[in-house]
Amino acid sequence: MITAYAARGAKQPLEEFTYEETLGPKDVLIKITHCGICHSDVHLIDGEWGDVYPLVPGHEIIGTVEKTGDCVQLLKEGQRVGLGWQCNSCGSCEWCSAGEEVLCSKNQATCMGHFGGFADKVVANERFAIPIPERLNSAETAPLLCGGVTVFTPLKEYARAGSRVAVVGIGGLGHLALQFAKAMGCRVTALSRTREKESAARRFGADDFIVGPPGENRFDVILNTAHTSLTMEPYLAALRPKGVFVQLGASSVPMSVSGLQLITGYKKVAGSAIGHPCVLREMLSFAAENGVQAEVETMPMKNVNEGVARTRQGLARYRVVLER
Amino acid sequence: MITAYAARGAKQPLEEFTYEETLGPKDVLIKITHCGICHSDVHLIDGEWGDVYPLVPGHEIIGTVEKTGDCVQLLKEGQRVGLGWQCNSCGSCEWCSAGEEVLCSKNQATCMGHFGGFADKVVANERFAIPIPERLNSAETAPLLCGGVTVFTPLKEYARAGSRVAVVGIGGLGHLALQFAKAMGCRVTALSRTREKESAARRFGADDFIVGPPGENRFDVILNTAHTSLTMEPYLAALRPKGVFVQLGASSVPMSVSGLQLITGYKKVAGSAIGHPCVLREMLSFAAENGVQAEVETMPMKNVNEGVARTRQGLARYRVVLER
Repeated sequence: MITAYAARGAKQPLEEFTYEETLGPKDVLIKITHCGICHSDVHLIDGEWGDVYPLVPGHEIIGTVEKTGDCVQLLKEGQRVGLGWQCNSCGSCEWCSAGEEVLCSKNQATCMGHFGGFADKVVANERFAIPIPERLNSAETAPLLCGGVTVFTPLKEYARAGSRVAVVGIGGLGHLALQFAKAMGCRVTALSRTREKESAARRFGADDFIVGPPGENRFDVILNTAHTSLTMEPYLAALRPKGVFVQLGASSVPMSVSGLQLITGYKKVAGSAIGHPCVLREMLSFAAENGVQAEVETMPMKNVNEGVARTRQGLARYRVVLER
Repeated sequence: MITAYAARGAKQPLEEFTYEETLGPKDVLIKITHCGICHSDVHLIDGEWGDVYPLVPGHEIIGTVEKTGDCVQLLKEGQRVGLGWQCNSCGSCEWCSAGEEVLCSKNQATCMGHFGGFADKVVANERFAIPIPERLNSAETAPLLCGGVTVFTPLKEYARAGSRVAVVGIGGLGHLALQFAKAMGCRVTALSRTREKESAARRFGADDFIVGPPGENRFDVILNTAHTSLTMEPYLAALRPKGVFVQLGASSVPMSVSGLQLITGYKKVAGSAIGHPCVLREMLSFAAENGVQAEVETMPMKNVNEGVARTRQGLARYRVVLER
């Protein structure tokens, strides 16, 4: 029996909810110690991503392996692991066999069509429960499992040492993006709507902090971590030749993209989301070596509704993490 | 003295026009034998790209070097060369020094702020006059200098053998894109509005020909060679994971791009235009080795207004080339 917190319908408060575990041969049962609250959880709770109820949110999970299925080879009982947005995939398609499980058409989300991490336990395929390096603290590492890898993936793809990277939005994702980009040797700029977060942004690694128009011909990579679609023209103008604007937030409002701006500078608009298991491993190792960690507000998991409210209102500095 | 055909104002017929040559120390004077008519020439003539008059269009030029400036080292008199959209750049910035002259902020177009190829001669910096491999015919090669390299560049960047490549629009650019993609070992699909060009498209190398919705999860690369912006949703749906939609036509209408479609499949929308001198060389060599050439309608240069009219109306099969 697993005891969880579930929403019974859109915008409903989370209430206690129990369900029976079913452990497949390649699954592990994780006893949860920590779970971050991501904006995606709020989108799910608020009904923005469809009728997904009963919903047990939570996909920035850290815990220990309590039980292993009969055929599990990769993990052992007692091992500390993390679980992010994805908890399974087919394991055999062209994408899975190339280590690109995020792209599998049968990818299984941890908290959509499956019960997630606002709970005492969660079930996941062994390939998606990632060992946590010893020197990382659980509370500060939980948000890396979704927010961290979501910014690490496009930086790994598009940035290199010396790249000029701008981060739009200094929140759960943004404060991690600044840290990762700085640790990768990039010149890092925070783009924000107000001066409020300037000192924090500089502490996270921003070399420059800009409020208002982002300027022209300045950045090789712009990561949009805000939940909204931006007016694209000034951001495309702010890209240097061959630059890329990466959309990370799952906004349903389309972007208006000028073909002329793209073609004259070989520019790109790209999307990225979460990260493959191999990238999760690499990201955690990089975080351990470079001291990247989330700045978190911890609270007992029974206060989950308070944590959700703080996240919904944008008050979390910079991530709420539930503890058991 | 150079004798050319010029437009004196927007949408004016081209009329005879003479100007004095001025040859810088690193310039060459090219005696023109052939010049293709590109849709960009029509945009310029029709006033869509601003007040650029008097305008001598033409930037798909083949001819022979008639005179060399005092410091020219790369070319000799009598050599057959081609000249495309770009005829000069600063030669010293980060982009020029990396062989990416298209991205130079001081890039000089052949027929904007400079007199182009609807003429008996044209002046260009020696770095932009590219030797033509012996086995290529001039008339069929002239369109490669702009149209050819414009499709070769994104294929070189984004496609590889086995890639599933779709080409939107079977015209001056499209008929070359089909040939290059096929020669690169791609699985090639032509996307067209009608069945009219099916047999031609298959002759150019299309394995498949689709009229109407492009389907889902089919292509790694889509090249939009049409002059218009497309309704993007079906094309982004037609991309496979990690696929890229490349806009080539210089449409001023923005594209409406769904961030959700981009992020869920790591997809991209990119722009590309013309090609660097080193890519022009590579493209011409590849064309010579693989039998890629434009299908052209040739006419004497004095009939330039007829050629422009056919191009404007989309009647050219598949490129008009003016001969002297």
